[in-house]
Order: sequence, then structure tokens, then C-alpha cells
Amino acid sequence: MPVQPRTPPGVLELLPPQQLAFQRMLDTIRRGFERFGFLPVETPVFELTDVLLTKSGGETEKQVYFVQSTGALKQAQAAPAGSDKPPELALRFDLTVPLARYVAEHEHQLNFPFRRYQIQRVYRGERAQKGRYREFYQCDIDVIGKDTLALAYDAEVPAVIDGIFAELGFGKFTIRVNNRKLLRGLLESLGIDEPRHAAVLHEVDRLGKQARPEIEARLAGDGVGLEPAVATRLLDLLSAHAGDSRAALAALREVANPTEALTGGLAELQRVYEGTLALGVPESRFQIDLSIARGLDYYTGTVYETFLDDHPRLGSICSGGRYENLAGHYTKSKLPGVGISIGATRLFSQLLEMKVIDETTVAISDVLVLQVEPTLAATYAELATELRRAGLNVEVYGGEDKLAKQFKYADRAKVPLAVICGSRERDAGIVKVKDLRSATEHDVPRAGLVTRVRELLARPATPAT
Amino acid sequence: MPVQPRTPPGVLELLPPQQLAFQRMLDTIRRGFERFGFLPVETPVFELTDVLLTKSGGETEKQVYFVQSTGALKQAQAAPAGSDKPPELALRFDLTVPLARYVAEHEHQLNFPFRRYQIQRVYRGERAQKGRYREFYQCDIDVIGKDTLALAYDAEVPAVIDGIFAELGFGKFTIRVNNRKLLRGLLESLGIDEPRHAAVLHEVDRLGKQARPEIEARLAGDGVGLEPAVATRLLDLLSAHAGDSRAALAALREVANPTEALTGGLAELQRVYEGTLALGVPESRFQIDLSIARGLDYYTGTVYETFLDDHPRLGSICSGGRYENLAGHYTKSKLPGVGISIGATRLFSQLLEMKVIDETTVAISDVLVLQVEPTLAATYAELATELRRAGLNVEVYGGEDKLAKQFKYADRAKVPLAVICGSRERDAGIVKVKDLRSATEHDVPRAGLVTRVRELLARPATPAT
Repeated sequence: MPVQPRTPPGVLELLPPQQLAFQRMLDTIRRGFERFGFLPVETPVFELTDVLLTKSGGETEKQVYFVQSTGALKQAQAAPAGSDKPPELALRFDLTVPLARYVAEHEHQLNFPFRRYQIQRVYRGERAQKGRYREFYQCDIDVIGKDTLALAYDAEVPAVIDGIFAELGFGKFTIRVNNRKLLRGLLESLGIDEPRHAAVLHEVDRLGKQARPEIEARLAGDGVGLEPAVATRLLDLLSAHAGDSRAALAALREVANPTEALTGGLAELQRVYEGTLALGVPESRFQIDLSIARGLDYYTGTVYETFLDDHPRLGSICSGGRYENLAGHYTKSKLPGVGISIGATRLFSQLLEMKVIDETTVAISDVLVLQVEPTLAATYAELATELRRAGLNVEVYGGEDKLAKQFKYADRAKVPLAVICGSRERDAGIVKVKDLRSATEHDVPRAGLVTRVRELLARPATPAT
Repeated sequence: MPVQPRTPPGVLELLPPQQLAFQRMLDTIRRGFERFGFLPVETPVFELTDVLLTKSGGETEKQVYFVQSTGALKQAQAAPAGSDKPPELALRFDLTVPLARYVAEHEHQLNFPFRRYQIQRVYRGERAQKGRYREFYQCDIDVIGKDTLALAYDAEVPAVIDGIFAELGFGKFTIRVNNRKLLRGLLESLGIDEPRHAAVLHEVDRLGKQARPEIEARLAGDGVGLEPAVATRLLDLLSAHAGDSRAALAALREVANPTEALTGGLAELQRVYEGTLALGVPESRFQIDLSIARGLDYYTGTVYETFLDDHPRLGSICSGGRYENLAGHYTKSKLPGVGISIGATRLFSQLLEMKVIDETTVAISDVLVLQVEPTLAATYAELATELRRAGLNVEVYGGEDKLAKQFKYADRAKVPLAVICGSRERDAGIVKVKDLRSATEHDVPRAGLVTRVRELLARPATPAT
């Protein structure tokens, strides 16, 4: 009795055409990272538990997956109750903690400012539910400085993202940028005391997602307890110039009683904004958005979010920012950094569902050489080898099946071209090339095969009539 | 007090230059697979335990890593002793079992013959020791047929391998091919009864690794118990024509009393041999080697091994073969296949240690734009953007550090070219390009930058004098 073959819940396993589309997306992301000189890093899927979970009892620990060999498991099961130690190994739940461990561990062998990208899967032991994955890809870049890191790197991050999303072709997108030092300074300048900052920023982060009156009511209500006039002034400042970065910067310059944080944060934001534009990112895709606050503790300066204009419900598809110290748990060295992360699995699955990504037209092979007469097998091998040496992806149909079955295979594989050569063609010194997209056949002199195949592949696909 | 940052034992974590070299090796392998139309597949790192471990108590189960969320772990710890169930999830230990599960699960959505490649890490809970990894990459291809699979695919596998290793440039290599049906037939024809086949083939597999007299002694000794003359005849046949495939085939045709298996296996081997040569694989890199037996149960026809001629101690670096039924544990469909696997992590680490792979000359970036005068930041951004749009990988040095420090960074990063532009150059309408490999400087008109940079990159690197 066979075992029912099935995947664990909470993972995204793709059929080959989808996997091919996903692979192309990851390749584009990787090429975009490398274009800016980011170096590849891969870390083991598991870390030592005590290294991974330096802060015990956090939210992340509740979601961690532990790993045990058969031997370790048996030992644990045999131990008396109450003597339980956590297993030695655990799966990484993000790429930030492994980066911190990596940089601290190899600090003296790295070249600072250290620019790395990492495209790997991470693991969360979540309850399985739609849109939540237990295993998913993250694509991260970070630049890590030793002691200091120039602001120029903050301006580069949006340029990396812009290049990638322009090439991915998921429609119009906007990269939004803000600065948390500026936000803090703005609250100070409006007289909001520090203990309330977290609660205020939490509400600010909801701008654009909830109606303003609701947010304003909560800010002025019992929970946060701002003066109603202060709440109004704050929200005016943060939302008045949405979509107009220069006006937003100008308005901030007019704020009365600016604190050092406001002045400093504003100067940073302005330099990042200008620096990014200098790198060729168009203003239509890059905006200052003062309502972006991001996570409260980790980010200390520039913060980024990215949205697909036609699909606002997806939320930010690529977020990050500047942090003051990457690896305080592992080293006394101060390692400031700036980075961003794309959650590739979730993004891909949503765009696939919305048919923004179309996996039905991608093929791995450019050409299928059909098996017309078994005695000509050596000819088919020769044709395929010639096309492969020209850089094309080529399959030879291996079985001696009827042509109808071979064409059905080609159709399912979405191969654009079939090469057909029976003894009649061979004797005439030609090869038939069938464009399966347009259902047109071409007699091609044997010596001109590669050239003609390249020409046909370069043509836009016209559907069969 | 910081936690000591460290990687778990038994994993290969690479520094960026090594990772870059490894990445290029994986890219070459992948391109080689795709050139023959193999489709990408990725499976989750963990499988359901009952699906993964269909044969309980085997060698593999002793090495498996189990995975448990925090919640599941606590539940297991709280359960009374003796009620232990194995955890729900386990890490894959190879790519074959996940392939079998994948093909059985998605059988009706796949296009047969199904050609897939899979490049992912696998996990073995081994005792850590030199050269043994707990986490390592495998790069597999397989062609899976439904009910039947043409022998033509067996001839294609060595062509894929040949293309890849020719491009990888690890020196001379030899792909050796044999056929297990033929081996079985040969034993039959020599009158060796079936119960002894496993023991005989076990000794045969040692040819080339141990001295012949030792092997012959064991074959004729108490353990295997062949007539000494039979042992001699067998070893003569298997080793007489090493390195001469045609002579080996001819000798097999002369064996007296050929059984059906011998005749059938010989015909298969001959067709695979000729088919592979027809695909352009040179005879100097592809040989019939009758002493190759591989694992005893799984492979039923063609078998392959691959050796680096200059590094025989590495053993086979790429092995595989034909099997009769991929997924008998998961489906009643008969799914014959042929495939091969490269153990990329072990191969890479050994070649790195032997300095066959040199990671010290690889760089991610083609050009580093130096930060000469902070007021020219926009110019540096513009130069970098222009070079990136021309397809080059470019970094701009972000910090306002002394040039000596910037050059030191460039040197450690192995960037071949530095672009230098102060106000003097800017006013003169030129840019300085310094070739850091030869320590030569070139004044380049601003408009000719891309062309000149491309020219310099195309030159072979000449070391600084």
C-alpha cells in the first residue's frame, strides 16, 4: 500500500512552469544586487540555538523550528522529565540574525564597508493559514560599516530596488522613504514627550491604511492623550504633501522650535532624496512619505517601503532602513548598516494568483528536435549539438512515439520551435523548422539552421490562427 | 556579555570571494542542465516524516534530522514517557526521495518524459568529521518516463555532464559508463549463480581502487567461493580493455553461452555509447568501464561515474544511472528514469583546498568609482549609473575617506578598475581610469568612458610590476 505523497502544510511548492517564472524573478533580483557590487553570502539553514536565540522569550522564539538528529532525539526522549534542554540547532527565521552572526564571526576577514546580498529561505513555525508560509524566500541586501557608515549608502538602496522592479515588470511602483530621526524630532518639536513616541508612531504608521479621523481620534483620545490641536498639526504635517517630496521637505523646514533631531533628520532625508535622484531614479517612482514609520526599535534613520501602484492591498513589498548596530549580541565592535528585504515567496504567489505573473508562456527550451525516423538518431544528435553550441536550450525527443504525441509534448512544454528532419529533408539538404506559436513551417538549408532559428526566436510570438 | 558567534559543526560556510567562486560553479552547472531543456524544481527543505521515511529502520533514518516547532517540542516534552511519536517533519537527506514524492504527487500535471534539475542542499545528521558535511549541495538531473523511457535519454546524460565539466575547467576528466544488466548477464554466462552476484559485484567495484591479486583472492576465497578459473576469467574480461571502449565491446561479443541479460545489456551499452558520441562527446573523455557497478539494488541498466584525471583520489565526482521505478512507495504508476548527481559542496571544498579553484582573483564589481571630492557626489552617481546601464557591476565608494583607504578597499575587493574624477578632470572633460591589475592610469574623454572601460576589462590581467 503506497504512502500518500504530500507536501507539508505552509510551504509553496511550484510546478515546473511556475518554478521557472519564480527562478527568473530571483535571477533578476540577484542581477540587480550584483549590478551594485553586492557580494553573495549563504549561511547554513540552521544555527546553534544559543547563538540564534540571544533574546529569549521573544515573539521569534515562539515561532522557531528546532532541529534534532535521530540520536539527539532519542537521548532527549530517554532523559528524565524536567531535565529538558532546548535542542542544539534551530532553523533561521530571518536573514538578519545570520548576517549579524556572520559579520561578527568573520569580522577580520571581511572588507568594510561590507556589501552583501543573501537570497535564501527562512522558516517560521506558524500556524498554517492562507498567505502565511512556514518556509519562504527572503532576498536581502545590507551595507555594513565598521564604526561609521556614510549616508551615501542610504541613497543607493532605493536605486538598487528601482532597477530591480523596473526590470521585473510588475507595473508601476513607488519607493517611499522617510527618516525616523526626523519623525522623533518632529514629535519633540511639537512638544510630545518621549514616552508617548512609540504609541504616536504606531498610529502614524496607519496613515494611508485607515481613515484620518479615526487615527486623529485615537491620538487625541485616552490611549495616547495628545492635545487635539497637536494631533491635528502632526497629521497635517505628515500628510499634507503626500506625493510632493519637495513640498514636504519645505514644510518641515518651517516647523517652529526645531530640535536637533528634527534638523539632523531633515538634513539626512534631504541628502538621501537628492542622492537617490542623482543615481537616475525617476521622481515618479521615488517619494518622501512622512507617514512611514516601520518597526519601532531597530531602525534609527532612513526607512523605506515599496508599493505596487496598481496593487496597494499587497502592502509594502520591499522594506528596510538604517540601523545603528547590527551585531551587539555577538561583538563589541560597532557595526552600523542599511539594508532592505524582498519577501519573494509571498510576492510571487500573490502576483501569480492575480495573474500579474503569467507562468503559462515560459519555456525552458528554445527548440525541440523531433524523432521522425529512428535511423536518423545521429542526425538529430548532431542538429541539437550544433544549436546548443550556439547557446540555445535544446531537447531531442527520445522516444520513438508518434509525431502527434511528440507535438503534444512540445505544446505542453511551450517550446517555441520544433526541428523536423526525415530522410526526405536530409536527402534534400534541408531541415524543417516549425514555429509552434504561429503554426508556420519553414524549409531551411541545413547550413543555415542556427541563423534561421535565431531569427525565428527573435520574432514576437504571434498566436496560431 | 556577547554570545560567541559561531557556525554549527559540519557545515561549509564560505567567505564572500569563495562564495562567489562557488556561485559561479553552481551557475555553470545550472546553465549546463538548462542547455538540455531540464526544468527547475525546488522542494521544501522538510518533508512529512511518514512520507520521507517510507522504509523504516534503514541507514538513512539513523542520519535524519527531525524538525519541531517550539509548540510541538513542548508538547512532546510534556507527554508521559513511552508515548513518544516521531516529530511530524524531517529534513530531506537527498534529492531522490523528494523527486519521487514530487512526481507522484503532481503526476497528472507533469509533462512526460519529465526532465527536471534540482540544485538544493540536503541534510545528514552525521558525526562531524573532516570531509563529511551535515549540510551540502546536490545538483541532480533526472528524466522520468511514464511506463517506459527511451534509451536515448541514457545517452544524453553523459553529454550534459561533459558540457558542464568542460566549462568548469577543473582539468581533464573521464566519464565512465557501464551497464548493470550486462554485468548480471556476464556473471550468468560464466555460470555464477544469482545468490553470489551481490558479493561478486561488490568486489568488482573495487577494481582500480585495490590491487587485482587481492580482489581475485577474495573472489576465489571462502567468502565468495568462485572457481579460481572463473574468477580469473571474470577479471580478465572486466579489466582487459580498460581505456579502449570498442575493444571492450568486441570482447563481450565473444563471451561463450551469452544469456539474454548479457545480450540485452550489451546492446544497451553499445547504443548508449554510440548515442553519446553522436552528441559530440569526445572519446578521450568518455569510456566504457566494465568494472563500474554502483549501488546494488537501485540501478538496473546504465551506470555512470566521472573522475578528474589529475585527481583520482577524489573518487567519482558525478555518478548515477538508470532505474526501473522511481516512486513505488508513493504511486502504482510505473516511472522509470535515468539521472545523475553532482555533490557540489564536497567537490568545491576539495578543489579549493587543492587550489584547483582559485578564489583570490574573483571580484563581483568591474569598476569602483572613487570618492575624490564630496561636492562631486552627483557626478560619481552619474558615472556609475552610466556604467551600470551598460551592463557592468559598479560600486561607488560611499565614505569620505582618504584615497589610500579607498584603494585598500578596492585591492581587497579585487576590483579591476577604479574611476577617478576630481574637479580638475571634470573641468577638462575627462575621467581617469586606473587599471588596478597593472597599476596603469588612462585619461579618458568623458564621452568615451563606457567604451574604454569595456576595452580595459576585455584585456587579460597583467600584474602590477
